[in-house]
Amino acid sequence: MARIVQKYGGTSVADVERIRCVAARVKKCHDAGNDVVVVVSARSGVTNELIGKARYLNPAPNDREMDMLLAVGEQETIALTAMAIHAMGTPAVSRTGAQAGILTDPAHTRARIVSINADNIEAALRDRNVVIVAGFQGVNAEGQITTLGRGGSDLSAIAVASAVKADLCQIFTDVDGVYTADPRVVPDARKIPEVSYDEMLELASMGSKVMQARAVEFAKKFGVVFEVRSSFNENPGTIVKEEIASMEDVVVRGVAVDKNQVKVTVSNISDQPGTASRVFQALAEAEVNVDMIVQNVGRGGRANLTFTVPRDEAGRAKKAVETALATIGGGSVDVTNEVAKLSVVGVGMRTHSGVASTLFTSLAEKNVNIQLISTSEIKISVAIDLDRADEAVRAVHEAFGLGSGEGDRP
Amino acid sequence: MARIVQKYGGTSVADVERIRCVAARVKKCHDAGNDVVVVVSARSGVTNELIGKARYLNPAPNDREMDMLLAVGEQETIALTAMAIHAMGTPAVSRTGAQAGILTDPAHTRARIVSINADNIEAALRDRNVVIVAGFQGVNAEGQITTLGRGGSDLSAIAVASAVKADLCQIFTDVDGVYTADPRVVPDARKIPEVSYDEMLELASMGSKVMQARAVEFAKKFGVVFEVRSSFNENPGTIVKEEIASMEDVVVRGVAVDKNQVKVTVSNISDQPGTASRVFQALAEAEVNVDMIVQNVGRGGRANLTFTVPRDEAGRAKKAVETALATIGGGSVDVTNEVAKLSVVGVGMRTHSGVASTLFTSLAEKNVNIQLISTSEIKISVAIDLDRADEAVRAVHEAFGLGSGEGDRP
Repeated sequence: MARIVQKYGGTSVADVERIRCVAARVKKCHDAGNDVVVVVSARSGVTNELIGKARYLNPAPNDREMDMLLAVGEQETIALTAMAIHAMGTPAVSRTGAQAGILTDPAHTRARIVSINADNIEAALRDRNVVIVAGFQGVNAEGQITTLGRGGSDLSAIAVASAVKADLCQIFTDVDGVYTADPRVVPDARKIPEVSYDEMLELASMGSKVMQARAVEFAKKFGVVFEVRSSFNENPGTIVKEEIASMEDVVVRGVAVDKNQVKVTVSNISDQPGTASRVFQALAEAEVNVDMIVQNVGRGGRANLTFTVPRDEAGRAKKAVETALATIGGGSVDVTNEVAKLSVVGVGMRTHSGVASTLFTSLAEKNVNIQLISTSEIKISVAIDLDRADEAVRAVHEAFGLGSGEGDRP
Repeated sequence: MARIVQKYGGTSVADVERIRCVAARVKKCHDAGNDVVVVVSARSGVTNELIGKARYLNPAPNDREMDMLLAVGEQETIALTAMAIHAMGTPAVSRTGAQAGILTDPAHTRARIVSINADNIEAALRDRNVVIVAGFQGVNAEGQITTLGRGGSDLSAIAVASAVKADLCQIFTDVDGVYTADPRVVPDARKIPEVSYDEMLELASMGSKVMQARAVEFAKKFGVVFEVRSSFNENPGTIVKEEIASMEDVVVRGVAVDKNQVKVTVSNISDQPGTASRVFQALAEAEVNVDMIVQNVGRGGRANLTFTVPRDEAGRAKKAVETALATIGGGSVDVTNEVAKLSVVGVGMRTHSGVASTLFTSLAEKNVNIQLISTSEIKISVAIDLDRADEAVRAVHEAFGLGSGEGDRP
């Protein structure tokens, strides 16, 4: 008997049939004698539909009213889920974010959770109810409905799990867990049974968008162990938890690829102190997320700067750099080059050498040119040609011996 | 400058285009310097759609969860309406039932309003906001969301108008006001400029379902003057208020027809004390709403009973009567006869005689047979053949001189 928080995302509760499947899964967990708290998202599509209506009426809808509007999506799901569970003979009660005691700061549409008063949830659990909590939403100190931003339901689940001291938080989604690489690209990619929070953060921030980084960070901060697993089958998923010593036995946990990057090259700028700083200041002011950076000093007192940015920020980046160049005596900017960012991730990297060497060798053997390199304590990333990305990830996956050879796939 | 509560029903806010029209109307009222509180329903169709989902998942959904689910409809509308008003440059803020301080008893799906703490609305009005309140919903003392039952948004509007001491409450709907008869049947029916609460109650309960009786009763109890008018044009509507002396100058205010009645004939029952009482007790236990009643004593100690019931309760009525007959020594029941109930209504009736005579004469002249008669202080009703109803209402309308001769119609 344990205390379990289960979170179901929008695709898992997309329609009444799927809600019924969720109810059956919840009932099974409850029948086994567990205390069960369920956190649900809005049905997939509902949030976008509401946003569409809002923007039709007002191109810049007020944030408070936006939260009032969007909170509707989860409120529908919690009520329907409770009814579906009742129909199976199991006691259940729904709670809006406010009723679940999820207190946030006042920042509408991107609120942060301040605290959770779980008394209301605890009381319902004592009566052997399944408690169904609306994800994504909370209430501020003034009694206004707030929302946590995209992916906020994961955060709700982790926070509720922390508040009720759950033994486990299960994040049900449409993927089977975290893989050593994208199984659609790498046929023998393996599901990883356990990863550390830090590895999850690096892998999740890299295209394999299983979960929002914010929710993982919250789990790390409060030591909430969670499992990412599929709501469409019974397979065990990936457990995400604090790093333990044995995790370091594996040097590289997985290979992630982000195909959503553009390389920006700033050429022929003045090679003087402060020049690069002016460029990056302009980018920061334009709220461009600059990723990998290289600076080359050229001849004749001129230099080149190269960096990557997310594709949809490329236009903003170009404009910001052009403005900066006008004040620092010339230079040109080019943003045409789409690249892929390939990363190998693993906490074991810290205690093992030779990771970079294996990575670079495996790419060289395939004649894949490395354009940029960046490293962190548990990650090495390279920017490569976009059209070589799939071939590269297969080679690297094999070079680090990550494959199962058995095809343990969804 | 006045304080005005405007209520818009489901058809008035059916989609984003109509919400924009509502916003324009609200803005105009606000621009004129008035304090404006708006009460809105769910978009038409939304409530039924949600009920459909609920019943799919659970044939007998829990009342608390039903309220949690249905409250979603109005919450969507208030947010969208606020955004639409913002887009026109007018300050506005939405309030759920709970945020508007609408406290109800604990009876989920049919809650009664206990009190309204209007501090929150008053504060927003002081800042010159339009305040948009979710109709149909409230909150009980335990913080649970409750709903007021079908037509509850009218009740919300009247109650809010009372709480904020509004000068006028405007009920915007899809009809132009209250008419002397149904204009689709009687070409020269006139819109009535003013009716008393009691006349409105009798007219509204009779097929011309402009408003729920409960809302009218609440308005009468707290002396809230309201106007029923169309949200699709600028025509003045019908003012409903406390009876004033001059209202009695008009003997008959209008003619109403209810075509949704079935005549039940119970024949050849024992003519002994308690027999009729056993029949009606059985009907009461089966929750059948019996309307007009006649008892005829026949020959040989046998009697007949005749009464009307709403069409959709006819089957239940037949079953109840048959059960009762089995215990009181025989008799037969027949529910095949569909009838129309035609009523003339007017507070002036109390002080004038001859109303019944005029009514009966006008029907006799058209050879319309009167099957049953019932009277109240301000109403005389007759049951007649369903297929003669339209002809009868035209004759009666003319006999009481209710027509305009000009066609003041929608």
